[in-house]
Amino acid sequence: MRFQAEVIVSLKKGVLDPQGSAVEGAIKSLGYEGVGQVRFGKHITLVVEAGSREAAEALVADLCKRILSNPVMETFTFTVTEVA
Amino acid sequence: MRFQAEVIVSLKKGVLDPQGSAVEGAIKSLGYEGVGQVRFGKHITLVVEAGSREAAEALVADLCKRILSNPVMETFTFTVTEVA
Repeated sequence: MRFQAEVIVSLKKGVLDPQGSAVEGAIKSLGYEGVGQVRFGKHITLVVEAGSREAAEALVADLCKRILSNPVMETFTFTVTEVA
Repeated sequence: MRFQAEVIVSLKKGVLDPQGSAVEGAIKSLGYEGVGQVRFGKHITLVVEAGSREAAEALVADLCKRILSNPVMETFTFTVTEVA
């Protein structure tokens, strides 16, 4: 069975986000008002082959913990959808 | 009114993703099988003040086109949710 996984990796609350701050500054300097709390994270898509949905979810969770995110500074969420 | 916006910026189909290829290689070298088509994009959250939902959506769309994405190589989607 093939599954499409969609992973969102975000910085934990309280972790400084220089990219977000830089973009927020650029937004303000372009004259936009009322825009704040800009935070950047990663959006990752991948295809996994697995015998069941549960096996696919376990594989994606393992990939998130070991490779796709840094557990010290980041959290992750993901969805798994079966594809043809 | 305050709105939380969640933006996903993805590379257009056909655009080479060196980061995705590198991570895919690392995944394989760690012994994982059945994992492919790894693609990286940006997940951005921000808070906007606007008079209405429509105004908030128009502002976020404008920010996406001008600052948060590169229209030549990237596409974007976003959701806007009112917050207290």
